[in-house]
Amino acid sequence: MENRIEKIMKVIENNNLDAVALIAGPNMAYLTGADFHLMERPTVIIFSKNYKPVAILPNLEVDSFKSLSFYKEVSDSQKNIYNAEIISWKDSEGFNDAFVKAGETIGNLKKIGVEGKRMRVFEFDIMKKAFPNAEIMDTHKEIVEIRLCKDDSEIQNLRKAIKISEDALETTLKNVKEDMTELQIAQDLIVNQYKLGAHSLAFNPLVLIGENAALPHGHSGDRKLKKGDALLIDFGCVYNGYTSDFTRTYFYKEVSDSHKNIYEVVQKANEIGRNTTKIGTSLHDVDDTVTCHLEQSAYSNCIAHRTGHGLGMDVHEDPYVTRGNHQILAKGMVITIEPGLYDVGNVGVRIEDNVLVTDSGHESLTVLPRDLTII
Amino acid sequence: MENRIEKIMKVIENNNLDAVALIAGPNMAYLTGADFHLMERPTVIIFSKNYKPVAILPNLEVDSFKSLSFYKEVSDSQKNIYNAEIISWKDSEGFNDAFVKAGETIGNLKKIGVEGKRMRVFEFDIMKKAFPNAEIMDTHKEIVEIRLCKDDSEIQNLRKAIKISEDALETTLKNVKEDMTELQIAQDLIVNQYKLGAHSLAFNPLVLIGENAALPHGHSGDRKLKKGDALLIDFGCVYNGYTSDFTRTYFYKEVSDSHKNIYEVVQKANEIGRNTTKIGTSLHDVDDTVTCHLEQSAYSNCIAHRTGHGLGMDVHEDPYVTRGNHQILAKGMVITIEPGLYDVGNVGVRIEDNVLVTDSGHESLTVLPRDLTII
Repeated sequence: MENRIEKIMKVIENNNLDAVALIAGPNMAYLTGADFHLMERPTVIIFSKNYKPVAILPNLEVDSFKSLSFYKEVSDSQKNIYNAEIISWKDSEGFNDAFVKAGETIGNLKKIGVEGKRMRVFEFDIMKKAFPNAEIMDTHKEIVEIRLCKDDSEIQNLRKAIKISEDALETTLKNVKEDMTELQIAQDLIVNQYKLGAHSLAFNPLVLIGENAALPHGHSGDRKLKKGDALLIDFGCVYNGYTSDFTRTYFYKEVSDSHKNIYEVVQKANEIGRNTTKIGTSLHDVDDTVTCHLEQSAYSNCIAHRTGHGLGMDVHEDPYVTRGNHQILAKGMVITIEPGLYDVGNVGVRIEDNVLVTDSGHESLTVLPRDLTII
Repeated sequence: MENRIEKIMKVIENNNLDAVALIAGPNMAYLTGADFHLMERPTVIIFSKNYKPVAILPNLEVDSFKSLSFYKEVSDSQKNIYNAEIISWKDSEGFNDAFVKAGETIGNLKKIGVEGKRMRVFEFDIMKKAFPNAEIMDTHKEIVEIRLCKDDSEIQNLRKAIKISEDALETTLKNVKEDMTELQIAQDLIVNQYKLGAHSLAFNPLVLIGENAALPHGHSGDRKLKKGDALLIDFGCVYNGYTSDFTRTYFYKEVSDSHKNIYEVVQKANEIGRNTTKIGTSLHDVDDTVTCHLEQSAYSNCIAHRTGHGLGMDVHEDPYVTRGNHQILAKGMVITIEPGLYDVGNVGVRIEDNVLVTDSGHESLTVLPRDLTII
């Protein structure tokens, strides 16, 4: 973890901050191994320029925290940045005093960066009270840079999560029968992922049949599978904290010509997206190239979203594959390429891969076939 | 839903607010049926005194939203409060303009309440930009009052979630064998819940063996079950948006006298907690009575947390069963009673029930036996 903690110290330095305050979640877990639930009990670690990391914890998490290597690694020669100090609070006392004490302990901070897309308003308010002289800024984008490029161990975990999900989907496809509901198929997929070793789900699977597939974030319900229906399956699991998230769209027993046409446009867009993914290309260019293909098709009115997002400890994370994002792809980034077309009331098709940027271009970590498949 | 929307209008009125802004989550779902994922795409509904509800949505959620009865129920005679207006935004445009438009549409607001324990800093910042003249206040506690007392349909969903979890646990207990790991037992429990109809998990089950059970929020790992071990199982599922969350602690093959002593103190504390739960009692008094029992035992140094929390669409929600919370129990509230004792390095015991406040006192919706059980 030492190397990682140096990364967050660089974020502080490069952005002229005095400190960064992280709440329970992927950034905290990445840096310290502390895999706490995000709950109503505020759990914050403050990394600062001039003091060792301070963890403000509900007392019921103290023993878990003490078991982390982050807590044990004492190294005076390295500004103590690997040796966190704990300030804990009890339910019966509330957390205010602990935060005030943290403020007094760390001393005068002028600029504190926080994860604006994760930290909640009540935690922000507590931080303002604890550090009344500080400007507390949303530096989410700067903070998550520590996780943009995945190292080998992270890629291994992603591969494992993806393998579990792919194998689970293959098993589920064998179980699919006419008149099964979206929910039944979703539950089969969940069970299969857990049986194959998933630690948790990335999200509840979106299993959407027929016209429901035209809702990009629809919920699996009681719609039954019939001949000629599209079957869109978007799902993923978590392994060692890393997520898979991919989509395939199948057709049941037969496919109409019009559905086939839509499918082929999306399939081509997905292929273009993967092939555009390489070191030095901007995320804007990836999305623009994919979206231009969709716009130039007969289904330009069926576009509902950008091409994709980063994938790692969060299901959706930086970098986002969207027009206007001029970040440049670098080795080790993992993004989803997930063009879709949604003809409301009729059908939706999405084909989503998880794509790693490599020295030589890209590798799609998801390998299940993308050709039109009638099941 | 009409009755529910009137509840949020009362929150606005009673707290001298001009509006309440809700993000994706239980409060939004309770009021509108809109069950959106909380993601990086801001999704906000603003209820205000003088204008109909305005939903600011990513365009990929618009069709889902239009299928809600909340959207369809037009009723001019009722100040239009059931007829939401949609302002949508696209990934390629970003969300800023949509929020500015919402500000112009709704008009001048002076005080806006938000869910401080749910809304994130970046959404708060967007709201500040959209309503530059408004004071935006954390009124989380006031907002969640709409969900404090459960109606019959909510209680039915809670009963169903609890029944699924209890049946799943009984099946899992039959599968438990020596040398199974925490993770294996947890996965069995997950699979069983889904097979029995769970829509999702309330949280990843905490299956903690032996000394690991002394970590109240420990993670299930590779610790293997051996003779004499405590086996603490804290878990729950979601059914129609409502959660179960309960805990039993068993012993494998045999129990030592000292573990038995700890168990009996916790069992008695649980019984006291359930029996103290009735209309008119304060949450403070429930926790105080339970905690006094623990404090007066030989294990007063093994207390780690309050007695419990509210349970409904959130796993942890108001009212919290904790000293200092002088809210009064009312009919339809559902709380957990979950005293625990944690002897670090040795053992932990927690017994958690889901308790409904009734006309005649209380009903424990969880009914699995609490007597010391050797499996």
